Amino acid sequence: MSLEPVTVTVWNEGVHELTTPEVAATYPNGIHGSIAAGLRAALPGAQIRTATLDQPGQGLPPEVLNSTGVLLWWGHLAHDQVSDALVARIVARVHGGMGLIVLHSGHYSKVFRALLGTTCSLQWRNTGERELVWTIDPTHPIAAGVDQPILIPRQETYGEPFDIPAPDELVFISSFAGGEVFRSGVTYRRGRGRIFYFSPGDEAYPVYEHPQIRRVLANAVAWARPVPGVGDPAVAVESPPLTR
Amino acid sequence: MSLEPVTVTVWNEGVHELTTPEVAATYPNGIHGSIAAGLRAALPGAQIRTATLDQPGQGLPPEVLNSTGVLLWWGHLAHDQVSDALVARIVARVHGGMGLIVLHSGHYSKVFRALLGTTCSLQWRNTGERELVWTIDPTHPIAAGVDQPILIPRQETYGEPFDIPAPDELVFISSFAGGEVFRSGVTYRRGRGRIFYFSPGDEAYPVYEHPQIRRVLANAVAWARPVPGVGDPAVAVESPPLTR
Amino acid sequence: MSLEPVTVTVWNEGVHELTTPEVAATYPNGIHGSIAAGLRAALPGAQIRTATLDQPGQGLPPEVLNSTGVLLWWGHLAHDQVSDALVARIVARVHGGMGLIVLHSGHYSKVFRALLGTTCSLQWRNTGERELVWTIDPTHPIAAGVDQPILIPRQETYGEPFDIPAPDELVFISSFAGGEVFRSGVTYRRGRGRIFYFSPGDEAYPVYEHPQIRRVLANAVAWARPVPGVGDPAVAVESPPLTR
Amino acid sequence: MSLEPVTVTVWNEGVHELTTPEVAATYPNGIHGSIAAGLRAALPGAQIRTATLDQPGQGLPPEVLNSTGVLLWWGHLAHDQVSDALVARIVARVHGGMGLIVLHSGHYSKVFRALLGTTCSLQWRNTGERELVWTIDPTHPIAAGVDQPILIPRQETYGEPFDIPAPDELVFISSFAGGEVFRSGVTYRRGRGRIFYFSPGDEAYPVYEHPQIRRVLANAVAWARPVPGVGDPAVAVESPPLTR
Repeated sequence: MSLEPVTVTVWNEGVHELTTPEVAATYPNGIHGSIAAGLRAALPGAQIRTATLDQPGQGLPPEVLNSTGVLLWWGHLAHDQVSDALVARIVARVHGGMGLIVLHSGHYSKVFRALLGTTCSLQWRNTGERELVWTIDPTHPIAAGVDQPILIPRQETYGEPFDIPAPDELVFISSFAGGEVFRSGVTYRRGRGRIFYFSPGDEAYPVYEHPQIRRVLANAVAWARPVPGVGDPAVAVESPPLTR
Repeated sequence: MSLEPVTVTVWNEGVHELTTPEVAATYPNGIHGSIAAGLRAALPGAQIRTATLDQPGQGLPPEVLNSTGVLLWWGHLAHDQVSDALVARIVARVHGGMGLIVLHSGHYSKVFRALLGTTCSLQWRNTGERELVWTIDPTHPIAAGVDQPILIPRQETYGEPFDIPAPDELVFISSFAGGEVFRSGVTYRRGRGRIFYFSPGDEAYPVYEHPQIRRVLANAVAWARPVPGVGDPAVAVESPPLTR
Repeated sequence: MSLEPVTVTVWNEGVHELTTPEVAATYPNGIHGSIAAGLRAALPGAQIRTATLDQPGQGLPPEVLNSTGVLLWWGHLAHDQVSDALVARIVARVHGGMGLIVLHSGHYSKVFRALLGTTCSLQWRNTGERELVWTIDPTHPIAAGVDQPILIPRQETYGEPFDIPAPDELVFISSFAGGEVFRSGVTYRRGRGRIFYFSPGDEAYPVYEHPQIRRVLANAVAWARPVPGVGDPAVAVESPPLTR
Repeated sequence: MSLEPVTVTVWNEGVHELTTPEVAATYPNGIHGSIAAGLRAALPGAQIRTATLDQPGQGLPPEVLNSTGVLLWWGHLAHDQVSDALVARIVARVHGGMGLIVLHSGHYSKVFRALLGTTCSLQWRNTGERELVWTIDPTHPIAAGVDQPILIPRQETYGEPFDIPAPDELVFISSFAGGEVFRSGVTYRRGRGRIFYFSPGDEAYPVYEHPQIRRVLANAVAWARPVPGVGDPAVAVESPPLTR
C-alpha cells in the first residue's frame, strides 16, 4: 500500500509496561512500540513516531500534535492523568481534520468520551477467551484483505451494551467464547476528522503482534488520514446576503 | 400494553407443517398459529388473524391485505410460489404505511428483497446451537422488557455477512455457540411503512413459543403499526409556484 | 394528545428580555414563558415549569433537574456563564434517560456541544428573511400534523455547513429567502436520552407564538419523554462468566 | 486526479435529443455526449464510453455491462421501455461491486427504484429557477473542490418530500428560488456496489456543461469505482462448523 506522506503518532500511556512484568515481557518495546513497528512495515511511505504520557507535554506538545496527521491512542490506568487542556487540543485537532484511532480500553479515555458525548461504558471480563472479529461491511477500506473472521486466541472479553452513539459505519462485530457480542470496529466523523474505534488489543496478550490486527490498523491509518486542504475547525461565520 | 385497535395478519407459507412430521408436532397449529397465539395474549386490543399460501389469493386477497395494519411474514420453501402481483401489492401497502415484520428465513422472500434492494444472503448452519440475542439499543421500544441476553437453547445458526443495506436502527445482535454473529433485529422505513426483520425462529425448534420471543414480536407489532392518517403512497406531483 | 404525566422544564438564560426592549415587547413573559404557554395548551397532562439562569442553582438545582423528564434549552448571550458543573449534571441526566430539546442559538451551548462532540458552528445572517421548514421524514412523530412547509415570515437565517455529527434522524430541512439551506430538525440518542435540536426561534421575532412551531415543540416533548423504567446511566460492569 | 484504470459507461435513453429541437441544440452530442466529454477531461486515466437505449441490447449487452466499472444513468421519458431483464442484470452487477450514478429524472428509473425499494417520488416544477447546491459533508470525496454553494442559474425545481430510504450519506442539499429544498446528493451501498444519486441536470438547460457539475460527476466516478478484488454477488452459503 502506498500513501501520500502522512505523519502518524502512536500515543500510549505506557504504565502497564513499567508496573507489570508480564506486560513488559509481552511488549518489550511497549504497546506503542509494537503498534509502531506494525505500521512501519505496512506503510513504508508514512512517518511513524511514538509518544508516551511521561514525556514533556504528556507526549503531545503543540509541535508534535499539530504535525500529526493520524493519532493512535492507547490508555487504561491513567485516563485521569491526561490534562483537560491536552484533551481540548486533541479534540480541536480532530475537528480540524486529524484522524484519530482509539484502541481497546481507550473507550474510556477523556478524548473519546469528549468526541462521542456518551459514557462509552461496556461489559467486560478478563479470562483470556477466544475473540472472533467478523467483517460486517465487506467493502469498507478498513476491512480490506482481512480474514473472515479474524481469530484472536486469547483476549479480554468486551460485551454489549456498549454506550456509544449509533456509529456512522459499523465495520466489525466480535463474538467471544462466552457468548458476548461487541461492536468492535466503528467509525465516526466529527468536524473534518475521521475517528475509528477498534476494540481488540489488551496489555495481557500479544494482540498487536497479530498480523491481521496489524493489517486493520494500517488500513485504518490510511482511511483516517486528513483530506488534503483541510484546515482549522469551522467557526460560526456571519455570511453576507447572497447577491445572486 | 394497550393499543389503539390494529389489525394484524400473520402470514405463513405453511409448507413445513404439512410435509415434515416433526414440524407438525412442534407447531400443531402451524407456525402462524403459534405466533398469533402469542400476539393475542400480549395485545388484547388488537385483532389478530392468520393467512397461508394455500388460501384464495395466496391468503392475502385485496380485502385482507388492504385492511391489514401490520403484516408478519414467515416463508422458506415456497418463496418462488408467491406471485409477483401479490408482492407488488404488499410493497405498495408498505409504502402507504402498513407495518411489516419479516421473520427468520423470510430474509430471502421476494417481499423483503424488493423492499431492501439487496440479495439478503447470509451464512447458515442448522445444528441446533444455542443463540444469545443481545440488545444493542437499550431504549428501543422493540426491546422493552426483554432479557439481556435472550437465550434460545437450540436454533439454526445465521452468520455474517448478511447482505442487507445499513439498517436505520440496529436493535439486536446475536451470537451462536459456534462463534458466529448476526444482526438479528434491524429496522428500516420504506415510504410511510416501518419494517422490522427478526431472525430468531425456525421450523425445527419451538422458538415462537419462547416467552421472550413473543414479547419481541408483540413489541414490534406495536412499534410498526401505521401512524394515524397515513394514506396512499406518494406519487410525483407537479407543485405550483409558491406564492409566499 | 394525551400523555403519561411528564414533568417538563423550559430553561432560558433570560438575558435578552432584560436588556433589549424590543425583545421584552415581543416576549413579555420571556421566551421561556411563551414556550411554556404553548406546551401547557398542547399537553394538558404534562407539568410545565420554567427556569432561568438568574435563579438559585442557575435555575436547575438538583431537585429541579432530577425531577425533569424533558428539558428545553434556550441560550445565546450567556453560554459561558453556565457552570461546567451544571453542564456535567445535565449531560449525566440525558445519559440516564432525560429528554433534551435544544433550541435555536442553543446550538452553541455547552450542553449541546458536550453531547454532540463537535463545534456546532454554522453560518448566519440576521436580516429577518422568510424561513420555510420542510418535513423530510413524513411519518416522524415530531412532524405529526404540521404544514408542508411551515412558513415563518421573518427569522434569523442559519446556513450550512452546520458542524454536527450525522444525525440519527433528519426530520426537517429549512430554506431561507436568501437561498441558504439548514438541517433545522435533527435527532440524536445519547445513552438512554433522546435529543432534538430545532433551529427556528429567535429573540427578535415572535417565532414561539407561531402555532406550527408550538405544535412541533409539543410533539418533540412527547417524543423525548423518558421511557418508563429507565434508570441511571450505565457504568462499566465486570460481568461474570456466562454459565449457560 | 489520477485513477487506476476504470471503465465508465454513460447510459442515456436518448429520446429528448431526437424529439425536441431545443434539447438537440443544447446537447448536440446528446446528454450522454456532454457527460462523457466532461469525464474524459477530468479523468484522463479512465476509459469513458456511451450507450443509448436504441442500440443492440438497449445499449448494455452483457459484454458491455460486465466490463463496466461505473455506470451513469440518465432517463426520463422511456423508463418503461427498459426491459426487466436488463434491470435485473444491472442490479446484479451493482450487488457484485459495479458503481452506479443515477442522474436527475433517473430517480424514477426501474433500476433506481429496484435498488432503493421505495417509490422515489418527489415534487417538481419546471420554470427554470435558480438552484443552489450546498455541501453538507465538507470532507466527502464527492464534494472535493466544489464551490459552496454551486450556483446553477436555471434548473427544474425538485422538492421534498423525496421518497427515498434514509441515505447512508447526505452530501448535498439544494435550495430553489421558489423556496423548495431537496436532498440533491445522496449515497447508498447495495451489496458491494456504491450508488450516488445526483439531481442536478435537466434536458432543458446546459447543466452538464457546468464546470462544477462536471467536477461532482468526476469525483463521483472516482468514489464509486469497484474495490479491487470484488467478485460476484454473495449467495447464501452453508458454513461448516467452526473448528477453532
